[in-house]
Amino acid sequence: MSQPATGQIKLNAYMSGSGVQGDSWRHPEVDVDAYRNFERYRDIAAALERGRFHSIFFYDNVYADIDALPFHTISPRWDPLVLLSALAVTTRHLGLIGTTSTTYSEPYNVARRFASLDHLSGGRAGWNVVTSTAGGENFNLDAHPDHAERYRRAHEFFDVVTGLWDTWADDAVVADKATGQWVDRAKVRTLDHAGEFFRVRGPLNAARPPQGWPVIAQAGSSESGKDLAARVGEVLFTAETELEHAQAFRADVRARADRIGRNPNHINILPGVSPIVGRTQAEAEDKYGELLRYRDRNATLQALAAYASLGVDLAGLPLDALVPLPDKVAETNSHKSRQALILDYIRKHRPTVAQLYSRFTIGGHRILVGTPESIADDFEHWFTNGASDGFTIMFPSAPGGVNDFVDLVVPELQRRRLFRTEYTGRTFRENLGLPHRPNRHFV
Amino acid sequence: MSQPATGQIKLNAYMSGSGVQGDSWRHPEVDVDAYRNFERYRDIAAALERGRFHSIFFYDNVYADIDALPFHTISPRWDPLVLLSALAVTTRHLGLIGTTSTTYSEPYNVARRFASLDHLSGGRAGWNVVTSTAGGENFNLDAHPDHAERYRRAHEFFDVVTGLWDTWADDAVVADKATGQWVDRAKVRTLDHAGEFFRVRGPLNAARPPQGWPVIAQAGSSESGKDLAARVGEVLFTAETELEHAQAFRADVRARADRIGRNPNHINILPGVSPIVGRTQAEAEDKYGELLRYRDRNATLQALAAYASLGVDLAGLPLDALVPLPDKVAETNSHKSRQALILDYIRKHRPTVAQLYSRFTIGGHRILVGTPESIADDFEHWFTNGASDGFTIMFPSAPGGVNDFVDLVVPELQRRRLFRTEYTGRTFRENLGLPHRPNRHFV
Repeated sequence: MSQPATGQIKLNAYMSGSGVQGDSWRHPEVDVDAYRNFERYRDIAAALERGRFHSIFFYDNVYADIDALPFHTISPRWDPLVLLSALAVTTRHLGLIGTTSTTYSEPYNVARRFASLDHLSGGRAGWNVVTSTAGGENFNLDAHPDHAERYRRAHEFFDVVTGLWDTWADDAVVADKATGQWVDRAKVRTLDHAGEFFRVRGPLNAARPPQGWPVIAQAGSSESGKDLAARVGEVLFTAETELEHAQAFRADVRARADRIGRNPNHINILPGVSPIVGRTQAEAEDKYGELLRYRDRNATLQALAAYASLGVDLAGLPLDALVPLPDKVAETNSHKSRQALILDYIRKHRPTVAQLYSRFTIGGHRILVGTPESIADDFEHWFTNGASDGFTIMFPSAPGGVNDFVDLVVPELQRRRLFRTEYTGRTFRENLGLPHRPNRHFV
Repeated sequence: MSQPATGQIKLNAYMSGSGVQGDSWRHPEVDVDAYRNFERYRDIAAALERGRFHSIFFYDNVYADIDALPFHTISPRWDPLVLLSALAVTTRHLGLIGTTSTTYSEPYNVARRFASLDHLSGGRAGWNVVTSTAGGENFNLDAHPDHAERYRRAHEFFDVVTGLWDTWADDAVVADKATGQWVDRAKVRTLDHAGEFFRVRGPLNAARPPQGWPVIAQAGSSESGKDLAARVGEVLFTAETELEHAQAFRADVRARADRIGRNPNHINILPGVSPIVGRTQAEAEDKYGELLRYRDRNATLQALAAYASLGVDLAGLPLDALVPLPDKVAETNSHKSRQALILDYIRKHRPTVAQLYSRFTIGGHRILVGTPESIADDFEHWFTNGASDGFTIMFPSAPGGVNDFVDLVVPELQRRRLFRTEYTGRTFRENLGLPHRPNRHFV
């Protein structure tokens, strides 16, 4: 099942609600006003379209960690659909992927919001389905629901949302001024869903989205996450640092899809990667050095220890100390796959604290410091060896980091015919090579 | 307390999610694609800005009445915040008021969405607080919650949302690249709300909105609605057909505000009115005649009977029959004030079916068929006699109906110095003459 990806590389741009990853806001080129200034995103999106990116992707969460605020830009965050609705007006081709939590939203509202974004953008909406890593304290709960419950709810939530999109046939609106008929009653139906978490009658108060369904993105990599991804995911944002592991993950998800009768080629696995691009290797290393100057190493080490539930104060150890092998690892209720990834790396490589930090300074994603050629070599190697269908680019800074990639790496990929030179489709689905989504009730 | 309004008339534009009211979609000038084509709204918003309107206002609901669909455009509807986020990019001055239900949403999500819209638009967001008239069947309920419960929840919902906006001081974000300090920890706090309906810890994951709070709009006119309006409303969209009743309503709400220590001048009462404008009275009558040709009289009569819980099939009566006086009127769980308005009119005027239809063809709002001068006369009469602070314009059709008003009535109002000729403020609050909203926790 480790089948090489066919066609060309797909590129997705990861964006946080404050414009950059982690501490990069201290970089001289970054506008610290991005948390409240839309123009920064408008300019980035324009650059991404110039670079023929398939999509822009906004991660999200529904809480603010008050103790992390003083030094981290993780909050404030824009509401992803507010930002994407604005970007729908300033772009023409870019897919617009917004994260919405299945744990902390109501499916009727979510279905309509994404249907509206799909209409607004002429069929370019995408929904990143997440169960969230925290937030119960802001939604009437004592605690974040456990992993199993969140995923049961996510499956049902997904069924309700997509079921609501299907309550209208594509051609339900007749709008015949002569007869006064607005809608063909035979082409709209109720949903009548009654499940463990939701009772939703429908129909939705929005016409069927132009794409049938907006593109479904997914990021979970735990066992439950892989099952959900195999069942519903069309764009998967994953964290993979080793080629062999990425190949195995891709083969696994494709096999799961195949077993439930889904076409594995409809799943685009796009691992995160953070490229630091220079015209020479030395220039790239210099840029990386400058970026690292603005990182808060201790905070990153503390976050890594927390992600992996190591139970060790990494920030308190000397940089050249070996990371101690954890003997007993606490069960985690979120970031299950991230925990496994970090523990796996520690057991396999026995790194020093400095090495662990350097490897995982962008949350477990690969950092490629190199020339357009060396980065294209890496992409080609992963792509042709069935480790991915493309990449989710996590720009280290903006706008320079975006422009570097678009102006230097994209042309190199195009020269190798690994990446398209023009948008070929009208909708996001068409640009991904995915079919219009059929309706379960209406032909 | 029947104090004349001071300053100048405020103008708010009512928009439904499908562009026009009721059956006007059959009018030749109306683009039936508005339910999925953003450009119609972009053009209308541009015309409103040309006419110096204070705001555009999107009503909303969270259900689709499948039996009303065949002949009514009430569904599909755009999600108001998706549409307003897009309009934020294409406009520069217009206030952007979106309806969100306190019965069928979660306050944490709503607080962030409006904060984001306020940042996106440079301080032009408004939130129309409604308890909804229906929708329980799509939100896990057996029935729409009763009136009292909905209003208890609305008050608490409002406190949580505004409390979350106040969890950040206006100047909480420091963003000092030299020191690496992102946020001043002393200027962000938790909310720690625990009430009948909600437990929300906070803080919000969005910086304080540029206006402090987005402008608060409100439309309820029942006793509970008036209490909520007096406590929180800054723009009130009301249904008033009689000058005396409008004066009494305005005096009542202002007195309620005064009693709880709120400045009554911070409440802008803007009754709905539908102007059909002609260069001559005859031209206006012709336009009205054409509009009526596209109305579905029977459906309107059925809706009126249902609104007022008359228990009579009005559509089954001859047009010249007197509307029977209802002896026992059923209690209604929604549209309480609308019910009273219609019953009041029937008791007072003893109309025929045709007269009732003609009076209430736009849901109980006034229809003004006239010249720019006669419409300006009416506005001046209401405004100078303390019946309103301005008007919510319900355009009978678009784009012609909008352009008629902007190009003919607005200049007449400006000539009389009843309406401004330029935007004077930067934010929606400033354009309404409202102060920046102070923060309850931070100076």
